[in-house]
Formats: sequence, C-alpha cells, structure tokens
Amino acid sequence: MTTLPPLTREHCAVLDVQDPLAALRNEFLLPSGVIYLDGNSLGARPKSSLQRAQEVISQEWGQDLITSWNKAGWFQMPSTLGDQLAPLVGADAGEIVVTDTTSVNLFKAIAAALHIQSASPERNTIITERSNFPTDIYMAEGITRWLDRGYRIHLIDSPEDLPVAVNAQTALVMLTHVNYRTGYLHDMAAVTALAHRHGALMLWDLAHSAGAVPVALNAAEADFAVGCTYKYLNGGPGAPAFIWVPQRHQAIFQHPLSGWWGHANPFAMQPGFEPVAGVRRALCGTQPIVSLALVGCGLEVFGKTDMHAIRSKSLALTDLFIRLVEQRCQQHALELVTPRAHAQRGSQVSLRHPHAYAVIQALIRRGVIGDYREPAIMRFGFTPLYIGFTDVWDAAEAMRDILDSQDYDANEQRHAVT
Amino acid sequence: MTTLPPLTREHCAVLDVQDPLAALRNEFLLPSGVIYLDGNSLGARPKSSLQRAQEVISQEWGQDLITSWNKAGWFQMPSTLGDQLAPLVGADAGEIVVTDTTSVNLFKAIAAALHIQSASPERNTIITERSNFPTDIYMAEGITRWLDRGYRIHLIDSPEDLPVAVNAQTALVMLTHVNYRTGYLHDMAAVTALAHRHGALMLWDLAHSAGAVPVALNAAEADFAVGCTYKYLNGGPGAPAFIWVPQRHQAIFQHPLSGWWGHANPFAMQPGFEPVAGVRRALCGTQPIVSLALVGCGLEVFGKTDMHAIRSKSLALTDLFIRLVEQRCQQHALELVTPRAHAQRGSQVSLRHPHAYAVIQALIRRGVIGDYREPAIMRFGFTPLYIGFTDVWDAAEAMRDILDSQDYDANEQRHAVT
Repeated sequence: MTTLPPLTREHCAVLDVQDPLAALRNEFLLPSGVIYLDGNSLGARPKSSLQRAQEVISQEWGQDLITSWNKAGWFQMPSTLGDQLAPLVGADAGEIVVTDTTSVNLFKAIAAALHIQSASPERNTIITERSNFPTDIYMAEGITRWLDRGYRIHLIDSPEDLPVAVNAQTALVMLTHVNYRTGYLHDMAAVTALAHRHGALMLWDLAHSAGAVPVALNAAEADFAVGCTYKYLNGGPGAPAFIWVPQRHQAIFQHPLSGWWGHANPFAMQPGFEPVAGVRRALCGTQPIVSLALVGCGLEVFGKTDMHAIRSKSLALTDLFIRLVEQRCQQHALELVTPRAHAQRGSQVSLRHPHAYAVIQALIRRGVIGDYREPAIMRFGFTPLYIGFTDVWDAAEAMRDILDSQDYDANEQRHAVT
Repeated sequence: MTTLPPLTREHCAVLDVQDPLAALRNEFLLPSGVIYLDGNSLGARPKSSLQRAQEVISQEWGQDLITSWNKAGWFQMPSTLGDQLAPLVGADAGEIVVTDTTSVNLFKAIAAALHIQSASPERNTIITERSNFPTDIYMAEGITRWLDRGYRIHLIDSPEDLPVAVNAQTALVMLTHVNYRTGYLHDMAAVTALAHRHGALMLWDLAHSAGAVPVALNAAEADFAVGCTYKYLNGGPGAPAFIWVPQRHQAIFQHPLSGWWGHANPFAMQPGFEPVAGVRRALCGTQPIVSLALVGCGLEVFGKTDMHAIRSKSLALTDLFIRLVEQRCQQHALELVTPRAHAQRGSQVSLRHPHAYAVIQALIRRGVIGDYREPAIMRFGFTPLYIGFTDVWDAAEAMRDILDSQDYDANEQRHAVT
C-alpha cells in the first residue's frame, strides 16, 4: 500500500499538458468516448492507414499491376519495413524482415537454433515458461515432435527458476520478453548472458516489447528474435510479424520453410534450393502486400519520437494507474499481478480479481476497453502514443465506481473470443 | 498449321457481343488502354476491393477494434472464405481454409502426407515435376532434409513419365495441376487414381487452376490441395493462400506448424497443443485481416457465374489466340508450348521465341501485358472475367506487328523481377 498523497483529475490534466508525446495522439483515430487500454492486443488505427491502403489498392495494384513488385517496392517491402523497425529493437539494418506470422517465424527460429546446436546432441532441452504465450510453446512442441530426436521442452514456473533450469543440456532458451498476461519484463541482457554461459542459444519473442519498451537485441547479444506488428506497433489486424537474425548468425541460419522468397535467385526458377545471403533467407512465400504496407503507417509514427521518451511516459502511466487503483480501490479484492519494479514491468498493468471477466465487461460498457485473460486477470495496456494521464484517471475512476456500486454481473460468462 | 479460314477483328467483335460473361468486365478496374494478359500472375482489381478495405480499416479496425474478431467475423474469416471458394474447386464446405502462403501450406500438406505414410517406411519417395513451380520443390526439399529419414525427391521430366515413376516406394505425388510455364493441364482424376493404385497419396497445387479451370477435388478423390488467391481469383497482391483437407483425412491431418489458431481451444491458453477438429487444424498463427478480407471481393464475382461458363470462354479465348498467332505470325519463329488439346490446356498460352523477353517488353510498351518465364517463354494468361475476344485480336495483332517490323530490342536484358 502506497503512502503517496491522493491525486486528483486536475493533477492528471497538468501531466497531459506537460506531456511531450501528447501531440502524437493526433496520428491515430479512435472511437469518441473510448479509452483504449487494449493496444497490447490490437493497436489503434493510424490515420494514414486508409490513404495508404487506397494508394496500394487503386494505384499500385489497380493501375500499375505486376510492375509494382519492383516499382512500388513490394518485393523488397519485408526488408524496407524491417530496416524501419530495427532501431526500435536495437537491431541493425539488414537484420529484420517483416513477414508471415509470429508462430511461423518462431518455427523458423527454433528450427535454426536446433540446427546450430545439432553438433551437440547432449543439448536436448528447450527451456521456456509455462506462462509463455501458448503458441510459442505449441510451435516448439510441433518442431520437436517432428524432428523426433529426443528433444524435450522444460516449462519453468517462474523467471527465478531460470538459473537452475539452464544447464549443459540446454539447446535453447525461448522467452517472451514481456509476459502477455502478467506484464513481467525479463532482463534481456542478463538472461541472454545466462543462456550463453551454459552454451545455450537465446530466442526472444518481442510481441509485447516492440514499440512498448526499449529493446537492445544486439547489445544483449541475443541470438534470434521474433515479434508482432499489430500490437504496440499499430500495423493493423493480424499484420505480418517480424523475425530478427543478427548478422553474425545469418550465414548459419537454416530452417525447413525454404520457400522461393528465401532463394538466392528466386526468378531463375531453378529446382534446387539455395538460400539467399542475409536475413532474407528467413522469407518463405509471397507476402500479403496490402496488410504489409499498412505496417509502415504504424512505424512512421515511431519516427516522430524515440523509445526512451515512450518508455518514460509508459512508466509514468502505469505508475499512475497502479497508484490510483491502490488509493481509490483499496477496499476491493484487487491484486497487482504486474511487477512494481520498473525494471521488471512492461507497458501494461494486470490485476487479479475474482470477477475479473465481469468487471472487464462492465468497463467496456462504459467505454474503457481493457481485456480479460485466463485465469481471473484484467489486463490494461498503456500505449504512450495515444493514451494520456486523464485517460488513466478516468479508467481508474470507472473501475472504482463499478466495484463500489457492484455494477457488474458476477455470473456473466466468457465468450469464446474476446 | 491450321486450315481454318482467316478471321477478322469484326468476327471477334461479334463474339464479344455474344459473350454471356461480357458484363463481368465491369466488376474490375484496369488501366485504360491496357490488355491485361497477366491475370495468371496477379489478378485484376475488383471494383469492390477499395470499399471493402475502407470498411475493414475505418469501421472494423478503427471503430470496433478488438470486438471485430467476433463481430466482423475476423477469426472465422479463413473458414468463411474457404467455404465460399469450395465450389470453385469441387470441395465441400468445411474443407478449405484461406490462410498463410502457398509455400507454407505446401509444407503442412507434405508433412501431413509423410506422417500418414510413416507407417510404411519403404515409401521414401516424393514424385514431382522438374518443371513444377520451384517453391513446391523447395518446400519438399526443406521438409525432407529436416526429417532426415532418407526421403528422396524424384523429379520427372514429363507427365508421361508418371506411370513408370510411381511405384511401391512412392509416398506422395505432388503436382501443380496446371503448369505455370507451359500451361499443361494434368488429368486430376487419372493421375490421382494412378497414385492411389500404388498406395501413394496425391497433393495438388491449384495455383493456376482455382478460378481458371473446373476442378473436382472430391470427385477425383484427391488427398490434399493448396492454391493461390491472387492470380485467377483476384484476391489482391500476395493475398493469403488456401489449403484443402477433405473430410476423410481431417482426423489424421497433422503437421508441425501447430500454432494457436489450430488449437482446439485457442483462448483457454493451455500450454499443451491439441488440434481442433476439422480443417481449421491447418491454421497456425493470426492472419493478415485486411489482405484476407479482400479475397472475398474476388470470390464474389465468381458467385455471378460458374466454372463451366468460365471454362467454355477460356477455351474459346485460347483457341482464338493460338489460331491468330498461327495464321498471322506464321513466318516467325514462334513455337506453341501450351498443349493444343483442350483436355491438357489451362487458361494460358505460352509461346517460345528466341527473343521472348524482348518481344514481351515491346508488347508491354504497346499496352499488351503478358510476362516472360525462363527460358525463352512468352506467357499469356486469358482470364474470361475481364478479357474479351477483340482483346485477343488486338494482342495478336500487336505481336504480329512487333515481329514483322522487328520493333523490339533483341539485346534487352532481363530485370531481376518482372
């Protein structure tokens, strides 16, 4: 329980006036009357996306047709966008392609890591967290079952188990940098160093990090990374994901999804596969250009600020929300799930409550959009590009009022998809 | 050389007037002055696609945000579109999902086929054509190299080699139904029956068939199929591909790309993978919704006709083009690559010429868009939804004039991508 003095909405309004990122809210369109705290699930719509879609559909597809593969840069787009994204995650140009889905990119990266480790058959373990986003675990299951070489997946129950779990049998440590449910932020450099001390490779999933917290892939000497563009990067629903292969691993990066876009000479139409040099060997098939192009609209907004300014505001927002919840909802059964320590906190706040699902539904009815995650967790994403400090006040107030007045239906059942 | 009487442009104009599909041309936007004979590479733009993109971006994403996963049917879209596509390829509802790329879907289907055949380790061969689209071969290479169980890929040089090649060692026959380069159309029922007689499974790539020629997957008792939506189906550049798993194989369909969209209960967030019943187990990760939604615009046009009407016009168009080329360009070194027999012809005409690349460039300069494929092949796709008979006349005339006047640059070099 905090001992800080009570805040008012007026304090928050002053913070908004002082906010150097406030103007970036104008880059996005959100429904009026909505406080959108779900940008960690689906990022808001950049204003420029509609015009960009129009340009791709009317001009590039409709008028210029096949010439757009060259002229409009369609074929190069996974690289162009990857280079634009690189500074946000501490990568260099030529190390990222935007392509396929996070799941498919995980498959490539896990396969490549196991291939590199195949010279050491005693390394038969992949370590990840039981609380990792399920698809990460499913993809590891998929590839290890198919390789059928005795690999096992060791699911740890807490980040604190890592030092004990990683050992000479570890082939790969695979973690989501910011946990999707709890908002726990791993220490990328320390965990990577731990893996390397034991000869293991380190794969990071940046789904809840890219555009949310500063990431320094090269500085941490990470081995591989994948990530999502439709959350904090605002690329649009289901927009193609990305994969990072650092320069030092590119020549040895091999994976079984050896499609023609990863070929050294894709238009020679030769029957034997020969991977292209560089990160484009992580490409496989033809990419969905309209969705891909919209990723650029989200990335452009990041060009107007930097990750340190974003992090600074993100922590101020989550600090404020935690403080308001603790000051104003203290008689309710809310439990802070997200770490209080800045060094361990992503850009979200998760709270446990026995009626979490029902409270989230009540909040949504009042225009405060967070989401629910099993079990019993309310999840609120704070995206500094379009969330302000009075938004945080209003969201906390809505929750206080809902809880005080029990204005939720405790029997409300969860839908299949939310 | 044909002995039919010479045709005139007026004959072609009469055919246009009599054409029952002529009105469908209005469903598409193409640049004025262009005869677009490259719909087998990138389909033309349906008029409705711009409004559909606007709806998805402005309303579904911008206003309705995460609720669109349910409310706008985003999560179900791979199935909804699959059911819409099914009648075009002789499949039933619940047998197709539109998802990922053709390459990735090939990987799933090859993996599933090899898994089914793994009870018979003597079946260690995948048969395909050396002239198959390279990515098909590359994906087979990728999975067999990684499985490392002694699989070999047998590349045949001609469809006539199939009866000799398929034997008790064959695990899988994998063919593209219509060859991308030659336009050769396989007899799906006969080849599938041949594979089955020897205990092999049959995988068809419908990249140049779906929307181009009638396909009867279930009637032919094929085992698996994949296909492309951005060619004859006009789904937009790089639009997601499709995969067909017939009902009888769905329970045994297993592949290593076991992502959360293929899980029995994706939102329970359980760490163990359990495939969903039905064709949705062929799904992997989150799909690019804007590109996916546009696939519906192309499919809607097909709802206004049927594949028999399309086939009938397609054969009339390709017959006409072959006849005009043979009557009017007979003194030039043009060699018909595409089979003359209707039963063996897709919806394209390929011609070999020593200066094929230069002639294609000269045609493009005159607004007749075909494309070039290695080696020395001019490829012309005839898409009955938006190509008319006078278009065919004008295209043939342009070629005649270019050849007669040698109005091409024989030294013109091929670009990296065309």
